[in-house]
Amino acid sequence: MCESAGRSATAFVPGHVTGFFSAHPNPDPAAAGSRGAGIALSDGVTVTVTPGSGTRLNSDAVDIAPVDTVLDRLDVAASVDAETPLPLGAGFGVSGAVALGTALAANAAFDCRKTENELIEVAHCAEVDAGTGLGDVVAQARGGLPIRLDPGGPRHGSLDGLPATPRIEYVTFGELSTETVLSSDTSQLSEAGEAALDDLLVEPTVEAFMLACDEFAAAAELLTDDVSEAIAAVEAAGGQAAMAMLGRTVFATGNGLSDAGYEPAVCGVDPAGGRLVDPVA
Amino acid sequence: MCESAGRSATAFVPGHVTGFFSAHPNPDPAAAGSRGAGIALSDGVTVTVTPGSGTRLNSDAVDIAPVDTVLDRLDVAASVDAETPLPLGAGFGVSGAVALGTALAANAAFDCRKTENELIEVAHCAEVDAGTGLGDVVAQARGGLPIRLDPGGPRHGSLDGLPATPRIEYVTFGELSTETVLSSDTSQLSEAGEAALDDLLVEPTVEAFMLACDEFAAAAELLTDDVSEAIAAVEAAGGQAAMAMLGRTVFATGNGLSDAGYEPAVCGVDPAGGRLVDPVA
Repeated sequence: MCESAGRSATAFVPGHVTGFFSAHPNPDPAAAGSRGAGIALSDGVTVTVTPGSGTRLNSDAVDIAPVDTVLDRLDVAASVDAETPLPLGAGFGVSGAVALGTALAANAAFDCRKTENELIEVAHCAEVDAGTGLGDVVAQARGGLPIRLDPGGPRHGSLDGLPATPRIEYVTFGELSTETVLSSDTSQLSEAGEAALDDLLVEPTVEAFMLACDEFAAAAELLTDDVSEAIAAVEAAGGQAAMAMLGRTVFATGNGLSDAGYEPAVCGVDPAGGRLVDPVA
Repeated sequence: MCESAGRSATAFVPGHVTGFFSAHPNPDPAAAGSRGAGIALSDGVTVTVTPGSGTRLNSDAVDIAPVDTVLDRLDVAASVDAETPLPLGAGFGVSGAVALGTALAANAAFDCRKTENELIEVAHCAEVDAGTGLGDVVAQARGGLPIRLDPGGPRHGSLDGLPATPRIEYVTFGELSTETVLSSDTSQLSEAGEAALDDLLVEPTVEAFMLACDEFAAAAELLTDDVSEAIAAVEAAGGQAAMAMLGRTVFATGNGLSDAGYEPAVCGVDPAGGRLVDPVA
């Protein structure tokens, strides 16, 4: 039961590109999730929660199912304002970021007295229930280059990470529906994801991660032509690039995309993960 | 086996004040540790590792047993330069920070290809073996306001956190030997620590944390006169303060110490935990 009638609080949650994953459905959403690895980005979502109603993303009124679920679970009536430079529906985990940011900011604004793990679980379950993501929330809560060793929220999953801070470039060619992919047969994809994770744990480096991502995208048959072309161009220029799961987005380490003649967005790794940025005194 | 002859790499690790804890020895250092809660501070230790030998702390040659152990485990010959504004031997987890920073930076400098959990475990075990700390390393790796739910390194322990970012003030009156306290009978202390953790998990807020710290320090009979006096002065001025375990250090939230007439050092919470800051290209 939240204690306060509410004030304003703001959270920042990094964007997250997944490089490979295996899907692990479970009737209990807290235990459902994905194994895999990705990168938490310094480009992310800033979420401000105040008493009221309605959700806005970059000033446009939107309906984000996981946000409504988070507010319901916390039993608060709140207005949610999210701002992000990240492309939408393109594999950056924006819905997970808004869900987690809403949980963190609403907890602070309404004195809900939850721990971080409890808030991460609320946001994770809301994403799983909506079918909009399986592993973004736990990765976004952790920050860095998260490796999801086991599927699920904080009580079930466990995480590791690659100790590195590469510069990241990315370009986006358009949307790809997470819901459509996740609601199809994911057995081929998951087999490729398990193999990629095994490879990464043998050689936990950024270079090996990027290679594992490429092998996964090919084996899972998720590459689109524009994505394939960009990855090939980066590799021809001596760099490493991979596809963001799930979006028509290519991310590269270092100057991979700019060296290949693209004009990418540039960011870094966010080492901290989701957090309050406007402390409530 | 590390792959490179070595170059230079730098890591930052936050200081950490423990507010209360229970000690959980174990013949396996990876499983040994403490339960409890504390604060990862934006004041921390910057550790630069290069090929060579010798350890320096704020430019003075020093012998830090856990640092030697970390370098031995990674099988590298390195020079370690640590810089910190934090007082030494005063409950800020400087030895744990140097150990973890050495692990992170040496891994990058020598291409040791370890994951973050593996590096945290190396540093945690080195601290436990040296008797210089039980729970600082895992808390410093996590960042935020870490709650150590279970003792041990990443394969054994589990962590939660308080979602808050208070301003922190601190004053130090002198050293207190962690080794002496930890090598004495810790049963009374641990009983008080378990009770404090139970209380915090019922009400996971910063206010409840500070109260739990005070009850722990009194029950564990660790308060010194100068520390008691400062805590009482802060409380008389309407604030909250507690003793850093283990040091003759008082930390307060908000303006607690300055409102009580002290001239404290001021910092914030470090949300990210130990990380590379000088990426190896």
